[in-house]
Amino acid sequence: MREVAVIGVGITKWGEIWKQSLRDIYVETALLALDDAGLDRVDSMYVGSMSPGLFVGQEHIAALLSDYLGQKHIPAVRVESACSSGGLAVRMGYMEVASGMSDAVLVSGIEKMTDVGGDEATFALSTAADQEYEGYHGLTFPGLYALIARAHMEKYGTTREQLAMVSVKNHRNGAKNSKAQFPFEVTVEQVINSVKVSDPLNILDCSPITDGSAAVILVPADKAREMKKPVIKIIGSGHATDTIQLAQRKDITWLESTYLAGQRAYEMAGKKPVDLDLLEVHDCFTIAEICVTEALGVVEKGRGGAAVEAGETALEGRIPVNSSGGLKSKGHPVGATGVAQVIEVVEQLRGEAGERQIEDPRVGMTQNMGGSGASTVCHIFEREG
Amino acid sequence: MREVAVIGVGITKWGEIWKQSLRDIYVETALLALDDAGLDRVDSMYVGSMSPGLFVGQEHIAALLSDYLGQKHIPAVRVESACSSGGLAVRMGYMEVASGMSDAVLVSGIEKMTDVGGDEATFALSTAADQEYEGYHGLTFPGLYALIARAHMEKYGTTREQLAMVSVKNHRNGAKNSKAQFPFEVTVEQVINSVKVSDPLNILDCSPITDGSAAVILVPADKAREMKKPVIKIIGSGHATDTIQLAQRKDITWLESTYLAGQRAYEMAGKKPVDLDLLEVHDCFTIAEICVTEALGVVEKGRGGAAVEAGETALEGRIPVNSSGGLKSKGHPVGATGVAQVIEVVEQLRGEAGERQIEDPRVGMTQNMGGSGASTVCHIFEREG
Repeated sequence: MREVAVIGVGITKWGEIWKQSLRDIYVETALLALDDAGLDRVDSMYVGSMSPGLFVGQEHIAALLSDYLGQKHIPAVRVESACSSGGLAVRMGYMEVASGMSDAVLVSGIEKMTDVGGDEATFALSTAADQEYEGYHGLTFPGLYALIARAHMEKYGTTREQLAMVSVKNHRNGAKNSKAQFPFEVTVEQVINSVKVSDPLNILDCSPITDGSAAVILVPADKAREMKKPVIKIIGSGHATDTIQLAQRKDITWLESTYLAGQRAYEMAGKKPVDLDLLEVHDCFTIAEICVTEALGVVEKGRGGAAVEAGETALEGRIPVNSSGGLKSKGHPVGATGVAQVIEVVEQLRGEAGERQIEDPRVGMTQNMGGSGASTVCHIFEREG
Repeated sequence: MREVAVIGVGITKWGEIWKQSLRDIYVETALLALDDAGLDRVDSMYVGSMSPGLFVGQEHIAALLSDYLGQKHIPAVRVESACSSGGLAVRMGYMEVASGMSDAVLVSGIEKMTDVGGDEATFALSTAADQEYEGYHGLTFPGLYALIARAHMEKYGTTREQLAMVSVKNHRNGAKNSKAQFPFEVTVEQVINSVKVSDPLNILDCSPITDGSAAVILVPADKAREMKKPVIKIIGSGHATDTIQLAQRKDITWLESTYLAGQRAYEMAGKKPVDLDLLEVHDCFTIAEICVTEALGVVEKGRGGAAVEAGETALEGRIPVNSSGGLKSKGHPVGATGVAQVIEVVEQLRGEAGERQIEDPRVGMTQNMGGSGASTVCHIFEREG
């Protein structure tokens, strides 16, 4: 398998986008990525999207988007794994370039979520859970993650304040990100006093409903060197699944799919948690970030909350987590999130992260999760030279 | 890239399946394929499905199905390209084995379409067309293909009877297929006098709404030889896209994505149309089969209707097309169709097609199409030994 590098990235401001439809948002970020890469043509494309059928009444979007991008005739594939659709698209693109099948692949993630009402959006999102055994009984995602949060508090003594601190940290980072949907800071008091969604989670513990897209261009590392581009290599890719129902897990505070995807990526990359200079994770709810950092081994089991409180995962901490602002502040257009995580790591490794730049990072990791952890995709990136 | 072989296939009777839900149907065919292959474990899995979100309110189905199959923790990917989702899943699985990333991949297609009413099913299917420029104006698929049929009749003199003969031929083949939804014969008169759907297409020109699944197991050809299995190799894979709107094509009787996907598959396989012993194509409507045989070069442009009338594509003709009964008689659970086409070719090449067995075929091809031809996936298979 060949070495693969990311040579182009494209992202626009996320939020409630009223003046563009799904296809327009897609084309804008794809063109930015092509421009950044210095290419006007790719061999094939992947699109990660969770549910364009339920959100905008449009399936078959890979063919549609290749057409609207002016790249009709190329192979175009949509992949879906709920909220980890974007990370999965990156993995498929990686495989296609690594295998030698293609020399330039455009990988995008997209979701247009605000064209439907709140109830419809909540239903669409709930289709990532087990509809027959969870959805049927009225469980939606805030409820599922609230169960995890309560179990974590009971088992490890995680506090309400520590949950809030995840949101505070990510909003602090997101305030430095011009692409973020909510680029402002919040306080622990504001999080704790915000509207209750599902006890113990308040609205400021939850990632928002967002319209947005993100795109990256993958090529063989040799080609990136030839083109005199900064060579940001994908050195590890891990993907794993777990039971879709929370009720079927031995310990709901432990994200087995994240643990396995992380281990597979570490092994392929020849890296350990201690080698990471930054980490972008799936903080769909504040408790999720806490559990994910534990499953990836960057903090000890049960210490996820304490680590946030001690500032270990802050921008200036020992392992910055979600320097982009995370799903909480940057927004969460589900299919786009996994691709945007890659963009944050690439920009940090290139030294182009502006106000939120981490000092000279060489190795970064992304973790993108579907549902309440039924699927996870992880990637590890390294800067060459 | 390594040689890849199909060593297991699984399919059950298609139709209106009331006593099983999506997950049950999936598990049944996947277990049949594993059993046929002599394996109890795979490295990863792909699922082709068009719109489980709109049909049964469930996304994230790859993770769900790996769990219900008892294979949680493996990478599980859903791919979607409307009605070509199944063929696309085969292509992704092929790429994964060919690249050396995995040694045993389970590829399935599935759709559970009858849990919603007719209007909802028609809407779900229409999301494969351009919703903003076609769906918005009231066009659904019978209308789109009726436009193609009228243009073909006008341009090439194709007759109403020739359209009907596609249905007659495919029902004659399907009557010999125990898995078919409608395993009975029809006459030209019955087709022409059946209920009008969209002039000139009647109900007996249209593929039905179907529940069903199909599964195949892919391994490196070397492993198939070691296991003393019949070695049915995938020797060509082609995938292409075209404008999603019919209105943007120069000639709506010509399926450019099918032409390109076919050429790419022929080139990779080192084969020509004349080398094919059988062909399974996407006859979602009778006119589609006519256009597809022209685009793949097995009959001359404009002669698709005449070729059916002359019996060239009959089971005993020079190039049997849709020996399985095709979408028309076998049924069309959209995501499953592309995988079931592969199963028909494998069974024919193994000499296991029973009453509909073609005499000693060595090379077969599948063509699976999305929407009105915005995407096509083709594969060519060859029997070794």
